[in-house]
Amino acid sequence: MSSDAPVMVLVAPQMGENIGAAARAMWNFGLDRMRVVAPRDGWPNERAVALASGAGRLLDDAQLYDGAGEAVADLDYVFATTARQRGLTKPIVSPERAMEQARALIASGQKVGILFGAERAGLENVDIARANAIISVPVNPEFPSLNLAQCVLLTSYEWQRQTADIEPETMEMVKTRFANGLEREKLGDHFEQRLQEAGFFYPVDKGPHMKQSLRNMWGRLPLTLADVQIMHGMLRQFARWKEGSNRTDEPK
Amino acid sequence: MSSDAPVMVLVAPQMGENIGAAARAMWNFGLDRMRVVAPRDGWPNERAVALASGAGRLLDDAQLYDGAGEAVADLDYVFATTARQRGLTKPIVSPERAMEQARALIASGQKVGILFGAERAGLENVDIARANAIISVPVNPEFPSLNLAQCVLLTSYEWQRQTADIEPETMEMVKTRFANGLEREKLGDHFEQRLQEAGFFYPVDKGPHMKQSLRNMWGRLPLTLADVQIMHGMLRQFARWKEGSNRTDEPK
Repeated sequence: MSSDAPVMVLVAPQMGENIGAAARAMWNFGLDRMRVVAPRDGWPNERAVALASGAGRLLDDAQLYDGAGEAVADLDYVFATTARQRGLTKPIVSPERAMEQARALIASGQKVGILFGAERAGLENVDIARANAIISVPVNPEFPSLNLAQCVLLTSYEWQRQTADIEPETMEMVKTRFANGLEREKLGDHFEQRLQEAGFFYPVDKGPHMKQSLRNMWGRLPLTLADVQIMHGMLRQFARWKEGSNRTDEPK
Repeated sequence: MSSDAPVMVLVAPQMGENIGAAARAMWNFGLDRMRVVAPRDGWPNERAVALASGAGRLLDDAQLYDGAGEAVADLDYVFATTARQRGLTKPIVSPERAMEQARALIASGQKVGILFGAERAGLENVDIARANAIISVPVNPEFPSLNLAQCVLLTSYEWQRQTADIEPETMEMVKTRFANGLEREKLGDHFEQRLQEAGFFYPVDKGPHMKQSLRNMWGRLPLTLADVQIMHGMLRQFARWKEGSNRTDEPK
């Protein structure tokens, strides 16, 4: 499914748990191509598998390398993630800009990878030197504390955010739809009629303005058909209440 | 520094570690206003403090509440984060769209909050009903496994990503503002009380569901303070109508 997504390359990861958490982070956003370079505790890693749970397939399919150079040998464009300035002349981009570039590169048939360093020290300069550009997550300069899996998570999220065709906004509509103009109009009529009976439009000379304000409200609010029906029900019930009739023996 | 950022509201968090990790996630992106509702293990929480390390100040400054209703009472617009469909009619937005909206709302002087649920179960429907909209992170449907701190991290990242360089929008509000959480809650109370008196919640066993549907509606509709006031006025007038009292000689 994600054969045209970036390859995530973990360089010298230490704790298996973090490798597993990185796999989960990737798979949350549909990325499934992991490479692992010289993991401290060997490979396969039981603790990584234990933590990856439903993302275990990524570890089964992960490619193992002795060095970062080999791991990126077939890649056309490589980003290195780092939190610190490294004194290397290299473009530094945000995750957003990096994934824009990755998307364009991949669309033109190139293979893109992202290097992530070891938990504490991050990538070594020798590995960063292999990269075409640096990704720097714009964290709070007073508190730059992202861990490996979080960095993988944010990068994967950015890839998915930019490539997925996601509706900016949907509405969960439970057995309903938005009320149409006629339904809103009739609701407005019903309110106006009941409120008139109830003496709401007072003083009389303010009535027209009050009515217009109400119509404007019914026009503006995103009412569903269910909302409209429940409001009709309320109005009917207030009228029954006024009349003193009892609903306990009526059908609902 | 982030007095104009969204407030992050953790509802019924269980493990202190996760509260600490959420604080770190926030502070990584410069957000520092946390509210905690009914934490399982009490407050303050040593394990939260231990895990927060450099973000401990957020925990010191966090506000503690007994219920989610109180925690959102002063907020003008509330997002609820949830992974599952909830059977509530409510707008569902991506983190990206949500933080666009948050930015526009905050730029126009409003207070915005984001609700995060407990680790396993997430938010309860009664809390989601209080929200204006739902944030749904577009995770891989085959593997939706974000934890609390990751959800806080992605939301905080989106806030920071967008506030770096996007122009704020504003909204035209004619002599009014949106109703805040407390004002919506009180409107819901007033409706519930009058409708109860009027015998609306019938049959009795459907009452709780009907009440939740109504609360959800008041949470979802973009009511202004003027809307809320006019609705209180309607309810008072229906009660006067029932009692047979005449308003012609009362001050409006």
